[in-house]
Amino acid sequence: MDIADCYIKVRKHTEQICSHLQTEDYVVQPVVDVSPPKWHIGHTTWFFETFILKPYFMGYQEYNPDYNYVFNSYYETVGNRVIRTDRGNLSRPTVLEIYRYREYVDEAMNNFLRSELTDDIKELVILGLNHEEQHQELLFTDIKYILGHNPLFPAYSKNYISLKVVPAISDEFIKLNEGIYEVGFNGDGFCFDNELNRHKVYLNTFEISPNLVTNHEYLEFINSGGYHDFRHWHAEGWDWVKINKIEAPLYWHLIDDEWHHYTYHGLEMLNLKEPVCHISYFEAYAYASWKGLRLPTEFEWEAAATQFTWGKNWEWTESSYLPYPGFAKAPGAIGEYNGKFMVNQKVLRGASEVTSPGHSRITYRNFFQTHLRWQFTGIRLAK
Amino acid sequence: MDIADCYIKVRKHTEQICSHLQTEDYVVQPVVDVSPPKWHIGHTTWFFETFILKPYFMGYQEYNPDYNYVFNSYYETVGNRVIRTDRGNLSRPTVLEIYRYREYVDEAMNNFLRSELTDDIKELVILGLNHEEQHQELLFTDIKYILGHNPLFPAYSKNYISLKVVPAISDEFIKLNEGIYEVGFNGDGFCFDNELNRHKVYLNTFEISPNLVTNHEYLEFINSGGYHDFRHWHAEGWDWVKINKIEAPLYWHLIDDEWHHYTYHGLEMLNLKEPVCHISYFEAYAYASWKGLRLPTEFEWEAAATQFTWGKNWEWTESSYLPYPGFAKAPGAIGEYNGKFMVNQKVLRGASEVTSPGHSRITYRNFFQTHLRWQFTGIRLAK
Amino acid sequence: MDIADCYIKVRKHTEQICSHLQTEDYVVQPVVDVSPPKWHIGHTTWFFETFILKPYFMGYQEYNPDYNYVFNSYYETVGNRVIRTDRGNLSRPTVLEIYRYREYVDEAMNNFLRSELTDDIKELVILGLNHEEQHQELLFTDIKYILGHNPLFPAYSKNYISLKVVPAISDEFIKLNEGIYEVGFNGDGFCFDNELNRHKVYLNTFEISPNLVTNHEYLEFINSGGYHDFRHWHAEGWDWVKINKIEAPLYWHLIDDEWHHYTYHGLEMLNLKEPVCHISYFEAYAYASWKGLRLPTEFEWEAAATQFTWGKNWEWTESSYLPYPGFAKAPGAIGEYNGKFMVNQKVLRGASEVTSPGHSRITYRNFFQTHLRWQFTGIRLAK
Amino acid sequence: MDIADCYIKVRKHTEQICSHLQTEDYVVQPVVDVSPPKWHIGHTTWFFETFILKPYFMGYQEYNPDYNYVFNSYYETVGNRVIRTDRGNLSRPTVLEIYRYREYVDEAMNNFLRSELTDDIKELVILGLNHEEQHQELLFTDIKYILGHNPLFPAYSKNYISLKVVPAISDEFIKLNEGIYEVGFNGDGFCFDNELNRHKVYLNTFEISPNLVTNHEYLEFINSGGYHDFRHWHAEGWDWVKINKIEAPLYWHLIDDEWHHYTYHGLEMLNLKEPVCHISYFEAYAYASWKGLRLPTEFEWEAAATQFTWGKNWEWTESSYLPYPGFAKAPGAIGEYNGKFMVNQKVLRGASEVTSPGHSRITYRNFFQTHLRWQFTGIRLAK
Repeated sequence: MDIADCYIKVRKHTEQICSHLQTEDYVVQPVVDVSPPKWHIGHTTWFFETFILKPYFMGYQEYNPDYNYVFNSYYETVGNRVIRTDRGNLSRPTVLEIYRYREYVDEAMNNFLRSELTDDIKELVILGLNHEEQHQELLFTDIKYILGHNPLFPAYSKNYISLKVVPAISDEFIKLNEGIYEVGFNGDGFCFDNELNRHKVYLNTFEISPNLVTNHEYLEFINSGGYHDFRHWHAEGWDWVKINKIEAPLYWHLIDDEWHHYTYHGLEMLNLKEPVCHISYFEAYAYASWKGLRLPTEFEWEAAATQFTWGKNWEWTESSYLPYPGFAKAPGAIGEYNGKFMVNQKVLRGASEVTSPGHSRITYRNFFQTHLRWQFTGIRLAK
Repeated sequence: MDIADCYIKVRKHTEQICSHLQTEDYVVQPVVDVSPPKWHIGHTTWFFETFILKPYFMGYQEYNPDYNYVFNSYYETVGNRVIRTDRGNLSRPTVLEIYRYREYVDEAMNNFLRSELTDDIKELVILGLNHEEQHQELLFTDIKYILGHNPLFPAYSKNYISLKVVPAISDEFIKLNEGIYEVGFNGDGFCFDNELNRHKVYLNTFEISPNLVTNHEYLEFINSGGYHDFRHWHAEGWDWVKINKIEAPLYWHLIDDEWHHYTYHGLEMLNLKEPVCHISYFEAYAYASWKGLRLPTEFEWEAAATQFTWGKNWEWTESSYLPYPGFAKAPGAIGEYNGKFMVNQKVLRGASEVTSPGHSRITYRNFFQTHLRWQFTGIRLAK
Repeated sequence: MDIADCYIKVRKHTEQICSHLQTEDYVVQPVVDVSPPKWHIGHTTWFFETFILKPYFMGYQEYNPDYNYVFNSYYETVGNRVIRTDRGNLSRPTVLEIYRYREYVDEAMNNFLRSELTDDIKELVILGLNHEEQHQELLFTDIKYILGHNPLFPAYSKNYISLKVVPAISDEFIKLNEGIYEVGFNGDGFCFDNELNRHKVYLNTFEISPNLVTNHEYLEFINSGGYHDFRHWHAEGWDWVKINKIEAPLYWHLIDDEWHHYTYHGLEMLNLKEPVCHISYFEAYAYASWKGLRLPTEFEWEAAATQFTWGKNWEWTESSYLPYPGFAKAPGAIGEYNGKFMVNQKVLRGASEVTSPGHSRITYRNFFQTHLRWQFTGIRLAK
Repeated sequence: MDIADCYIKVRKHTEQICSHLQTEDYVVQPVVDVSPPKWHIGHTTWFFETFILKPYFMGYQEYNPDYNYVFNSYYETVGNRVIRTDRGNLSRPTVLEIYRYREYVDEAMNNFLRSELTDDIKELVILGLNHEEQHQELLFTDIKYILGHNPLFPAYSKNYISLKVVPAISDEFIKLNEGIYEVGFNGDGFCFDNELNRHKVYLNTFEISPNLVTNHEYLEFINSGGYHDFRHWHAEGWDWVKINKIEAPLYWHLIDDEWHHYTYHGLEMLNLKEPVCHISYFEAYAYASWKGLRLPTEFEWEAAATQFTWGKNWEWTESSYLPYPGFAKAPGAIGEYNGKFMVNQKVLRGASEVTSPGHSRITYRNFFQTHLRWQFTGIRLAK
């Protein structure tokens, strides 16, 4: 598929995700980590306009200079922006206006992509498409948060099909021997700068589970008082539990003594066989600690990942999000993409059921703060 | 006009106010004091359903029990409710769904009002209509806040006509002599419980201005450093100025050294002849103190109000919002209407250009906390 | 007694109050409203140095210019100061150093007061002594807070003698008839500016209790669920109860199902016959509301006060703290004494058992914010 | 030296550190991270009483059961405790009372240590002494904070001698080659559980500076606008700079255009040749980024540390504080010592001029949150 077709395909996928929404669903921001869907629609458009059309497409006419202020996410290089907590306070531009902006930029991009392009520009377009795929995942998770925190618990779509994972035949842990392993990206295709450079690490002998922890297993932790026993928790995690009165994963509701959870179909009975989802790093760590086990490091995960199935939930690792040897930020605004977040976050590996098709790979490094739960996050144990 | 026609007229007026909005404008809540317009639409409907149809209209079928949770404002008697800060996080029910709810309740009310009604019920309906008129004013002020805090500064309606007030011919203060005056409501029509009972007060000789303070006069206060001189301010007001970096009334913007303000027509040059508007009690007090004058008490205002024009801006008084002698809360939820707010608020007298027609009277007592500015609030001086 | 002797007597009383303290007790500030005793010792000294010695005593040598920064309370006119929340973070100057400062200033004052003084200066000295008496009361209440919030509950002094009040023979309410009454100070001696001017008010017929509400009566309110029934509370009071999980007056502890309270003697069983003490305005209002009664206004209190005994606890009134007709702030720093606090506070009338001898009078107006409880505050009912 | 003599020596050293304090200096807690010196005196005593005397010394009589509540730091296993922010609110027990408690426990320990001891108990005593040495360092840093934030800037002791470090002859970076290195403790003496187990790591070729960054070098960063250029900072660090208006290291003051800093001798001119000190991880990272270099990892540091001088300032590394392979928490309260802090903190390596003699070693892992500056923290660069 050529780059212009790729562009159309990725852009259409974003719109398809939003096709189940009411206008009002596009607008709200119930917590600071969630962005209004209409903001995602506009921001991903602004990204192409700002980093490709304006600098490289001769004669391109900016759609509306005010949109720079509205749709910049965190690029300090590009100027001031609506503060993050205010995204849900903006009724204008309307959804319709933003879709018009999107159409305008798409048309320009379509013209531009059918012209002669340098490799540098192609790379930038591919970065923009990968960026948009990341927002597709965020759209799914933010929409879930918006609808799942509404007292009416509306369904996103009754036709949504959740990924089914067949558990490994045996629960036996996979064992890898002590030695030097190579990690990091070195293929031909696209990768983010945080996956480079491929380099050697020394791993001690370890074992890793072929399966994710299930709701059934996690319920045992809850029922045995796991949320009330400080011994399993980091000091900071224990404070988080007490201050926020955490008693279960996000989206779980105990109704008439039966555990339910909110899904894209609405409120449903909890399926005990499915992997536990929507837990913070603090909870993942506490569960592993309660089990007498631990989370894998991101390098253990990468070394072993060919031997198990992954892709249902992002998996918390014990690794902090740090630069690989030789990591260097790109110059300019694009350099703000990853590097400036490399502190006080944990690495997640794998992918989730709402990750865009073709977006995941074994060297991919996702990262979140330790208390966040609105992503599709799960637990794989190691020892 | 009979009560059923009154009902229709008031209800239509609410919808007319919202007719200039985009769907998205109905949804957002940029600060806690502002409610999303769709919430007002639903809440005023819920008021009639909860306090009239459900208890008194035989055979009435509740529209949706969940709406009780969504549209209760502050009536603890009636049960739990969405916390105030979450009103802007609700994308559902949608605007369309809420209008359908409104239609359903209006049809039931129409049937009910055309049946035989007791005086008690009639009184309750009239209370409901006055309640809705209060929300009409809030709709205007909340819409102004929503659009006026949007970085695009969209107009509400280019056809909106602002009330023009002809200033008194002379600036000379009106003088009233020392003695006993009567204040409070004693007419035939409707009044709120906080206007009762009519009672005697003793006033010292005082003088009161026939005119409101203008933007021109207020600019002198700003230009003479009024916001930077603690001597004019209450200690609490001075903290408020410093913490919030207040430098001018709400909606004022200094652009290229020219003062502009946001109006229902969008951003405009400041009209110096108009009364200053959107100031807190703290600012009203500081201005008066800077002038060597003071604000009137609510009783001075009421005693003198026949001698000047009012109705452009609600006017801050020096009086705290307290119960009149013999004040008693009504039993049940209706008793929560006024009494429980009688602490740490200041009385405003008069009315504003966005007060609903027929809603104001000389004994009317509005009240807000001392730091609030999103209402159409102004200054009349006394000495 | 001449003014120099008065000076010595008042100053010695302050030191006598502190004579039971350990050095460490002088230093801490467990909440923002409480000041460390050593700060009171220094601040009252600074007051005489700043407002009397430096401007009026020729040749007076300032003790230490840095102390101006440390011991200024809230006089913006006089310059910068340690922020209030930092008072408890200062280990220096030490207690000993502050007492040396006090001695130095006292010696200078002694010399100054034995010289020829103008009436203006005498007035200022008397203001300084009244100011110090207010801090004597604060010393008592702050010391109680410091020791009463220590997990060891140390006694202040086993020899402290609490004021006993003989209740009125009959519980019957005292009735006053409708009419014009005069309130405010008009005698010869000292009064604060907020008690001036004496003026007329119109009161409706009212009745007022000859006795304060007792612990026994207040326990009935607690036991009948008063802290869990929103109907008795202001909306703001109800929020305060829920956020702070208030269940009883300050210093009350339920130990093995028996109510105790912290006193200057340490933890003791609650004496049911004593007036209830250490309650906020919110609680006083809620209690009155639960009883179907109300608090008196400050003018009702003043009109009736000759007919009942007062002086055990400061009594909350329904009146907001507002300027009397004709009130004008003094020029300069002294003008900051009272006026700038006249917003969002309630008036208390009477005096308390820790008020300094000779400091109280029938026109005295004390004032606090509605949530504060560390003063000796009580309830007298009216209807 | 036998263990009883060791005990006496370590305990005396603590008291010697405090010998320069006034009673008041022992009491205050200007920020949550700083503990009052008297709390350190009591807590280190409580540690021996709780973990050694009570469980193992037959017939030992607990000094005062209430002290458990007062002096427990963070051991959830041992029960409730004064919340950390309240440590500075406690005037009792007094300094004298705490020294009496200390004497009582020391006498019991002296008797106990001269009896027959098992190896387990000896180990526990040695842990207690190392724990006390950590508090000796904290005493130094907390005292500096207490006195250095007092507006009078009192000296701790004019006789305090600061460690002088002779810089390396050449500034040339030390180069280590790619390969497997061993890190972690494996000697005979004492180490903390977080230094175990010794294990292999793979390091890429790197270079590390023989010297710490000096005040002179750091001033260049300041003067070139380093605190105002987001590009050098982590997103979280940039927020920290802006919210806290950070412009220079802690204790630096620009007075009449000359940089001063607070030292144990009081306010002094900044010595440009000394290593920069009292900076957060955020600042260390930003400085390195501005230089086009980076911080070393803790393993790079450990591999190279024999080739340079260290011990003046703790040195920030790029490594997050994580468990070593095979790390396991000890059972019971002692297990809370290190493990529960292994999240969202950075490792520091080396030691500082206020580290107790004999307390440091090449495998020692200190750790703090990324914004903290009150420790003696510095910067060593790598590439």
